[in-house]
Amino acid sequence: MIDTNTQTNTQKIFKAVKAKAVLTEQEDLRRYLTGFSSSFGYVLTDKNGSVFYTDPRYIEGAKNALEGSDIKVKPFEGSLKNILKGYTEIAIPVSRTYQPDYAAYAELGLTIVDSMPAFVEAMSVKEEYELEAIKYACGITDKAFCELLPRIKEGASENDVAAELEYLMRKFGASGTSFDTIVAFGANSSVPHHETGATRLKFGDIVLIDFGCKYNGYCSDCTRTFLFGDDKKHERFKEVYKKVLAAHMLVKERVTSGMTGREADAIARDFLRADGLDKYFTHSLGHGIGINIHEFPRLSPKSLDVLKDNMVFSDEPGVYFEGDFGIRIEDTVTLENGKTVSLTNSDKNLIVL
Amino acid sequence: MIDTNTQTNTQKIFKAVKAKAVLTEQEDLRRYLTGFSSSFGYVLTDKNGSVFYTDPRYIEGAKNALEGSDIKVKPFEGSLKNILKGYTEIAIPVSRTYQPDYAAYAELGLTIVDSMPAFVEAMSVKEEYELEAIKYACGITDKAFCELLPRIKEGASENDVAAELEYLMRKFGASGTSFDTIVAFGANSSVPHHETGATRLKFGDIVLIDFGCKYNGYCSDCTRTFLFGDDKKHERFKEVYKKVLAAHMLVKERVTSGMTGREADAIARDFLRADGLDKYFTHSLGHGIGINIHEFPRLSPKSLDVLKDNMVFSDEPGVYFEGDFGIRIEDTVTLENGKTVSLTNSDKNLIVL
Repeated sequence: MIDTNTQTNTQKIFKAVKAKAVLTEQEDLRRYLTGFSSSFGYVLTDKNGSVFYTDPRYIEGAKNALEGSDIKVKPFEGSLKNILKGYTEIAIPVSRTYQPDYAAYAELGLTIVDSMPAFVEAMSVKEEYELEAIKYACGITDKAFCELLPRIKEGASENDVAAELEYLMRKFGASGTSFDTIVAFGANSSVPHHETGATRLKFGDIVLIDFGCKYNGYCSDCTRTFLFGDDKKHERFKEVYKKVLAAHMLVKERVTSGMTGREADAIARDFLRADGLDKYFTHSLGHGIGINIHEFPRLSPKSLDVLKDNMVFSDEPGVYFEGDFGIRIEDTVTLENGKTVSLTNSDKNLIVL
Repeated sequence: MIDTNTQTNTQKIFKAVKAKAVLTEQEDLRRYLTGFSSSFGYVLTDKNGSVFYTDPRYIEGAKNALEGSDIKVKPFEGSLKNILKGYTEIAIPVSRTYQPDYAAYAELGLTIVDSMPAFVEAMSVKEEYELEAIKYACGITDKAFCELLPRIKEGASENDVAAELEYLMRKFGASGTSFDTIVAFGANSSVPHHETGATRLKFGDIVLIDFGCKYNGYCSDCTRTFLFGDDKKHERFKEVYKKVLAAHMLVKERVTSGMTGREADAIARDFLRADGLDKYFTHSLGHGIGINIHEFPRLSPKSLDVLKDNMVFSDEPGVYFEGDFGIRIEDTVTLENGKTVSLTNSDKNLIVL
């Protein structure tokens, strides 16, 4: 069992927020605080410790999971008003709080403090146990992709290939996917977020697969583009593939801790510009990865997020020629001693099956 | 291709809301309006029609999907302020709008109208094309469960069984699961929302599986509890199983259109009370099912939601004896001509593998 370090997380947020109490109901933030997955509940932390209020579906599971931690588990009964009785100040993640809930807190006469900056800061820089979970998820991702390749057969549908890949990730220990697996054949690859469907694989098709899994609550993310047989009609594809791969590798070489997301994005974008490919690179270079598949930091043309050691994010340049083909090459990476380390590592040289 | 009926949905909401414009950014509501899955975008509807603003990852896909509909697809460029220029009034789903976004709309001088009641009303009563998608998802669910049973072997882990089941649903056409599959062996079944793990199957184990899939954007939901071999130590389990099944069947028999969620819940709860089992029935009887796995109507002790024809919801009484065992029997059902019709139909008589 990986140590989920729950005391550190509730206390870390409480100390960073500097409010008399911290109330958290958002599923991902609650998961971060408790290390326990649930679809309903509130975590309330004050100077005396933390209470996780949840409903009967989770009480037994939460008690087992949080035994020995500083988080008490109690049934959520009555109302928030009861739970908050006696408090004059409360921290909530304002940008993740629905307007009527915010208004209700204000109506209780509570001074509202924003806890979101503390969560962003704490969740974007990973602890050792979080890195371990992500590395494990990335390992499953790599292993599943390798096992998948020889199973891809002519005539299979995109859905068939996604089914096979998800099955392999599950068998290798994943608790599920980190997002809907994208499998795109042929021209479908030109839609960056293609909806996996019934299209069948033909000899000579380009195949783009964007996939990831969850392990112990943490995500992996990886994209590979390859050829199902070489029909000798893909000279342009092969040429562009080399450029996208070079952009991907240049990011790994040049991104350092202390750089902004904008500067990281520019490494790939400027490189592709030299060949006029930047106008086909229609999305951001990358995004933070953790409990959520999209979180801080953002690696985009406008992002001022500062990259730091132990952050985890994607390096995923891509170019898309509408109705023709697309290429995306993505790894999950982290920063260690100022430099990038790749956590997904399956082959990125052009594969021809 | 099932008709996604998009004109009806944007126009239906626009007419029901009675505001000068309707702006929708929530993923599930946007999916309802456009029939197209995306992780970012805004749908703006006024008397002239609808525009779906999204980012380059989705532009090509959205254009293909919405060709011929009354929804135009445009790239989201600049800011919401630009898009909303000229409007004085805007409808948004207030209870699903984060406080800073709400404040920003107010700051633009816009009169805010709540669109959420219109969405709840429209999305809870299903159109024919929505029922078709749900029925198809339920059919996959049934077929996958039947195929799964002979594949369950002693020594398999909960994760193995979940992997197999999800693979089968995918192979039968699902685009993914509607939630994280729950597989619980033995005493794990007493945790209503057990986290599927590494526990291995032994002869005589109780097996509880709660699962569902998505088809064309719509969910199914089903739970079965059964025995992996009969070690003759399960007399109490068998006795309680009969009661839970009887409660489940009584709900199907007695629930009618026009009833409240509270009245429906009471049918099962009162029946179980006769044997003192109601105190172990620690959750609600059911929940609405559609694009979301949990939506309107709610079938719970406090729900005043009125059940109507063509609503889809779960019938899932369950009892849980902490540390010992749990039983839940769930079908996805709809109301047709005032009476329930079951959409998941795999065997509910106690299975002993």
